[in-house]
Amino acid sequence: MLNFSYRNPVKVIFGSGSCAQITKEVPSGSRVLITYGGGSIKRNGTFDEVKAALSNHEVFEFGGIEPNPSVETLLQALNVIKQEQINYILAVGGGSVIDGSKFLAAIALEENDPIEVLRTRGRSIRRALPLGVVVTLAATGSETNSAAVVTELSTHTKTGFFSPHIYPQFAVMDPTKTLTLPTRQVSNGVVDAFVHVMEQYLTYPVNGKIQDRFAEGILLTLIEDGPKALSEPDNIEVRANLMWAASQALNGLIGAGVPQDWATHMLGHELTALHGIDHAQTLAIVLPAMMEDQRVTKREKLLQYAERVWQIQDGSDDKRIDSAIELTRAFFEQLGVPTHLSAYGVGPEHIDALVAQLEAHGMVKLGERQAVTPDVSRRIYEACL
Amino acid sequence: MLNFSYRNPVKVIFGSGSCAQITKEVPSGSRVLITYGGGSIKRNGTFDEVKAALSNHEVFEFGGIEPNPSVETLLQALNVIKQEQINYILAVGGGSVIDGSKFLAAIALEENDPIEVLRTRGRSIRRALPLGVVVTLAATGSETNSAAVVTELSTHTKTGFFSPHIYPQFAVMDPTKTLTLPTRQVSNGVVDAFVHVMEQYLTYPVNGKIQDRFAEGILLTLIEDGPKALSEPDNIEVRANLMWAASQALNGLIGAGVPQDWATHMLGHELTALHGIDHAQTLAIVLPAMMEDQRVTKREKLLQYAERVWQIQDGSDDKRIDSAIELTRAFFEQLGVPTHLSAYGVGPEHIDALVAQLEAHGMVKLGERQAVTPDVSRRIYEACL
Repeated sequence: MLNFSYRNPVKVIFGSGSCAQITKEVPSGSRVLITYGGGSIKRNGTFDEVKAALSNHEVFEFGGIEPNPSVETLLQALNVIKQEQINYILAVGGGSVIDGSKFLAAIALEENDPIEVLRTRGRSIRRALPLGVVVTLAATGSETNSAAVVTELSTHTKTGFFSPHIYPQFAVMDPTKTLTLPTRQVSNGVVDAFVHVMEQYLTYPVNGKIQDRFAEGILLTLIEDGPKALSEPDNIEVRANLMWAASQALNGLIGAGVPQDWATHMLGHELTALHGIDHAQTLAIVLPAMMEDQRVTKREKLLQYAERVWQIQDGSDDKRIDSAIELTRAFFEQLGVPTHLSAYGVGPEHIDALVAQLEAHGMVKLGERQAVTPDVSRRIYEACL
Repeated sequence: MLNFSYRNPVKVIFGSGSCAQITKEVPSGSRVLITYGGGSIKRNGTFDEVKAALSNHEVFEFGGIEPNPSVETLLQALNVIKQEQINYILAVGGGSVIDGSKFLAAIALEENDPIEVLRTRGRSIRRALPLGVVVTLAATGSETNSAAVVTELSTHTKTGFFSPHIYPQFAVMDPTKTLTLPTRQVSNGVVDAFVHVMEQYLTYPVNGKIQDRFAEGILLTLIEDGPKALSEPDNIEVRANLMWAASQALNGLIGAGVPQDWATHMLGHELTALHGIDHAQTLAIVLPAMMEDQRVTKREKLLQYAERVWQIQDGSDDKRIDSAIELTRAFFEQLGVPTHLSAYGVGPEHIDALVAQLEAHGMVKLGERQAVTPDVSRRIYEACL
């Protein structure tokens, strides 16, 4: 196990009806900006429920935060924060709304210049506005971590940043809120959480037994309950397990003390930025090709993954690895998420530009061994076709 | 899954050499009381290492906190705190030193009357002195939770209490610190962590898949690496896994959203209080008898435990449960911890007094279904003989 430091101060409030507890969590008298996305929370009653819990507060709202939240949109929200002297942000939505609100919480304070926050990947953040979260989608785990990704539309650039100051103070996790989601978002969420685990698990062994077993436990849960969320859309126990799984997948716990990869995410980001493919879809495309390409450097963990996650016992090492990669791809496809670029209309003629964007963003030595150079990335994009 | 609320703010600083980081964690200029137990930290260099990290602080010390820390001893430490105007406590040791220091952190403030803290089981605590921890033994998980148990010698009473104010601010977890422990403490630590998991796992199913898989992952790690700590006493990777396992076993995570038992602990506490048997030894004695006695109420989870933790596939339900209980007992015995009262010189003539103590302490409806009445407890003690 590697040395590590870990602290996660987010208060999780989990279960049906937990929105009502917002009342106690946001200091009374606060000037609260409720941030949200496309407006589904207004149609399904969540907005009213949140507002009812904030009857002792001054409430303002900013909607329209898009998937892959843009800096351009968030700067509009910043104007509202300044005009209305907002001192608390309450994000109601999925990962995009939460990530965008983290950026807002940071740049709401004059000392944190937006460009500087991105350039330093969050290291320049010394404090931020307090942030609470109501999760409506089990996917990114952003509700219980200190990371966020925002997009600059002008340059097609997705930038991740990190700061202990952007941890939400609380995360209300009511699985009933995910019952009205469109199928595509449910599937994407399962894939997203699955690949988050893989980025922290499928590297090289350091004998981190707890981290490995926890990671495998999350994968097994997603494999069991992901498809059930589609076949039994009203099963609230399934939604609860997926919501808790997605949070544990990326709250820092399973990644503490072990090597991490994240090359799949970096290759995926360029696909979203240039072609508008959903984040989770890009992960479903890149991961199987990455596993195949890096099967030598990831050999020991691939064999462990084959045995413990897919119960593959028979055949040579290579055969078992083949099967594990095939089953991973089949799992994504079973969820209705295509795993080849051709399904999204991206052909070989686009690969030069994708690799050039990786280089422009400094993504030239990716992965847990820095083995994913631009040449390797090109090979992987080609295998994604 | 049951509704729950969970927050764990402890900063974990894990790995070899991490003691040096204390310097940054304790505010400079603090008047620090280093608390410790029997003095092994003075012989093995840990005390000097801690002191070196506190060169910008006023350092005082209080040693001699005994296993099952007594209120009587801790009131002596309270005098030091008052005399020296201590404003930070640094506990260096295992669960007893940490638990005792949590009690101290609470009662150091005049508003928290010691008797009231125990009577209310911690609910009366409104604030506490800040507390840091250096763990020297993987066992109780106290380093990353908000609970403690102290003993009143005068009445043979062990009382547990809880408060969010007694969470340590940080926990330095350096597995090399456990290399010099006596075998008995290593074994006890493994048993202690194992039974902590079982108290939160072996109840009735609520479809908490993440909680179950995490619990099983900790149990599997303890089964793999517990005996290795004895057979390969210099294996630092084994010590690291045990240390992280023990913390995860009782930091609240695997118990959030699921029913909990704790009857084994309650029956064990009376054995320690009346007969001075080590805490972990009492758990090794009571748990197998509890599993056997409650095999009907715990049937579904016993079958899951048999399959996932011990890989028992064959035979009738009852046969598989029998095997799982036998393997659990054998695991404790393999670690050198006897599982029958006879090995500790306690005979049938002592059972009346044990049951009377349970009743005197209000422990009359124990377990996740409140099914462990004094009659059931008597039956279980008898099965422990």
